[in-house]
Amino acid sequence: MSRPSTTELAAFAATLADAARGVIRRYHNFGVSIEAKADESPVTVADREAERLMRALIEERFPEHGIAGEEYGKVRADAEFVWSLDPIDGTKAFITGSPRFGTLIGLVENGTPTLGVIDMPVLDQRWIGGAGYMTRMNGSPVTVRACESLSGAILAATSPSMFDGVEETYAALRAATRYQVFGGDCHNFATLASGQVDLCVEAGLQDYDFLAVVPVIEAAGGIITDWNGQRPSPGSTNRILASGDRRVHDAALEILSTA
Amino acid sequence: MSRPSTTELAAFAATLADAARGVIRRYHNFGVSIEAKADESPVTVADREAERLMRALIEERFPEHGIAGEEYGKVRADAEFVWSLDPIDGTKAFITGSPRFGTLIGLVENGTPTLGVIDMPVLDQRWIGGAGYMTRMNGSPVTVRACESLSGAILAATSPSMFDGVEETYAALRAATRYQVFGGDCHNFATLASGQVDLCVEAGLQDYDFLAVVPVIEAAGGIITDWNGQRPSPGSTNRILASGDRRVHDAALEILSTA
Repeated sequence: MSRPSTTELAAFAATLADAARGVIRRYHNFGVSIEAKADESPVTVADREAERLMRALIEERFPEHGIAGEEYGKVRADAEFVWSLDPIDGTKAFITGSPRFGTLIGLVENGTPTLGVIDMPVLDQRWIGGAGYMTRMNGSPVTVRACESLSGAILAATSPSMFDGVEETYAALRAATRYQVFGGDCHNFATLASGQVDLCVEAGLQDYDFLAVVPVIEAAGGIITDWNGQRPSPGSTNRILASGDRRVHDAALEILSTA
Repeated sequence: MSRPSTTELAAFAATLADAARGVIRRYHNFGVSIEAKADESPVTVADREAERLMRALIEERFPEHGIAGEEYGKVRADAEFVWSLDPIDGTKAFITGSPRFGTLIGLVENGTPTLGVIDMPVLDQRWIGGAGYMTRMNGSPVTVRACESLSGAILAATSPSMFDGVEETYAALRAATRYQVFGGDCHNFATLASGQVDLCVEAGLQDYDFLAVVPVIEAAGGIITDWNGQRPSPGSTNRILASGDRRVHDAALEILSTA
């Protein structure tokens, strides 16, 4: 069977994101209090329903492809193409009324992440990018921005708790950067791809938290590695550093690699 | 001159928010990279233009009222009614592609905050509330939620850096609460008013950062004080604690008052 074209795969990834977005927007009553219920929370229901729908679409269109999802685990994990799915990245954001939660859809080809989607259902923003497919936000090409040195860099990180146990590392990174912004989850990586922040640092991640992100960052001209400078692949790490500029990336790695 | 009715004042506050929103949305090219320019940044221009417009509207409608704005300072600061204006709360959010920045409009009556607006220009969300005017989000009444104890409370805080120098206080608060979410700026208070988080802690604030927030929280059934339990008023504090439930508020105060 011939390889589907990148354009075809990107269009299909967008179809998956459309499907997940429809489910999530149905359950996310934006700005309205989420009632405590005896049964499962809306975020759990939305998470599962969105993943089931995406899995069904993959099974129908590419039955030979593998799937690795946050909610329902793996099938055909050693297939040539494996879809990595995180229906709702940023569960706490979803629950607490922040619109900064997203759907992550990654395609891993022979063990290498080659295509990714970061979709923000409430914000109506979608980044798609990958090998041979320049990253676009809602259809318009985006690129990272240059940043000469760490002292001029804006750092985005979801929570300071990722530095638990390595507080000195955070203190050093903080002292070296211009300023820090918090919260954001996958949206931080998207804003980096769009040239709005210079560095994203995360820890405690699962494969499905970063496999979709790698191609989006790289196809926007950015650099994304683990804290030791290695390109992330399935199972390779739980700590990620992304940067818009190689100079800043290298300088941040010097600090992070001590953690 | 008779006192304008609360309904009239609330409607006028909404007019101010509409005006600011129009300006801000014009400068905030959401999701698109902000070009570095020789002249002033879009956020600075938007901040100033929005405040000038709100001030002109106040001067026209209520020429005897005072104004205290972030950008252009104070006029008639000892008037019976003083409008507190922060055109863009969350400047870093604005700059880094987060939609969680807002316009704060507060009315201080004889030194007491009695009416407030938290407007989120990009999110199309507006909270208005005050004395005798139950807090509404986009027209629908909202209320805080009950939370029995600190161990069940979700804490929202913009940045951990507010605890610089009082790290033990943060460590104690963190250990005592269920979990913490970061980022958010004024949107955190709004989500508290809507029953989506249980505690908001901020420090390093100016008057215009909290005067609009006090009525919104109180008219949604919440409690808002400084870290020593005193109701905030102009010039009284730069540290704020807001809670949906008195039990949680008192427990948090026990920790914060040691800072």
